[in-house]
Amino acid sequence: MTEKREGEEQLATDPADLPPDGHVIFIGRVRSPWTSREECPRNMAQARERGIPATVEVASEYRRGLAGLEGASHLAILTWLDRSARNLIVQKPRHAPRPKGVFALRSPARPNPVGLHIARLTGLDIEAGILTLDAIDVLDGTPVIDIKPYYASTDSVPEATIAKSE
Amino acid sequence: MTEKREGEEQLATDPADLPPDGHVIFIGRVRSPWTSREECPRNMAQARERGIPATVEVASEYRRGLAGLEGASHLAILTWLDRSARNLIVQKPRHAPRPKGVFALRSPARPNPVGLHIARLTGLDIEAGILTLDAIDVLDGTPVIDIKPYYASTDSVPEATIAKSE
Repeated sequence: MTEKREGEEQLATDPADLPPDGHVIFIGRVRSPWTSREECPRNMAQARERGIPATVEVASEYRRGLAGLEGASHLAILTWLDRSARNLIVQKPRHAPRPKGVFALRSPARPNPVGLHIARLTGLDIEAGILTLDAIDVLDGTPVIDIKPYYASTDSVPEATIAKSE
Repeated sequence: MTEKREGEEQLATDPADLPPDGHVIFIGRVRSPWTSREECPRNMAQARERGIPATVEVASEYRRGLAGLEGASHLAILTWLDRSARNLIVQKPRHAPRPKGVFALRSPARPNPVGLHIARLTGLDIEAGILTLDAIDVLDGTPVIDIKPYYASTDSVPEATIAKSE
């Protein structure tokens, strides 16, 4: 069960128990050095500081979908964070001064547990279905639902800001 | 049915017909000026050139999840591109010189039809559940499955490159 911290709020109905509006299929898995929440980096910046690469293993039936990906220096990886609660609509991260809505956080606990990770592609073996990344911030075995080439022209906003919470 | 262009390849089994590995629920809808594929911008760069804002309407039960989002200048919006085929593993975009794997493309036709859109947040009415965006590149009514704050520190890679296909 989900542990509730002060100021946190739960949805009346857990999205995990709602009738599906759509379904996902897993196209692969992340292979990472992280096997427990305690050691798992909490974001991509922390993951890069560890300096340990990770891989994505793409299932055989989807490997043809990697053709041409060698041209991309960076990727957007979408994961399915299947070990996280889906019913915490307001959350109090451990080091945050106050609770925030889930859509103002990058917490893995979300109504739809999709993780977004921008990573550098350092190796690609299409036949084996192996992508090597500079780093990743999810547990070993986390399912992958999509891989997209990263376009600096539309995906990179260096001037984007997040106001510090008081 | 899906029209196949030269060099395109289909999956043996359409992901739409596979047993679900996970399910999504819609948290809201995009309201955009685009009601047909012909007029819909094909990416966020084209959408911005049109200079027309768009909104996301968040369903009432999920609006508490927007608390604190006013601090973000930009968002990552994840949509569910429910009017696209899921079985095209190799595709030949209209203006591309040769076919590419779906994971090397930003095509809306994907095994899991999740769209990723980086947009500027220009207005927020949490009670009404309305987010105003500078632009969007999806059809009116497209379901939304997640909203995330955009962090330049981890999401912005201005030096990312995509090799030009020969």
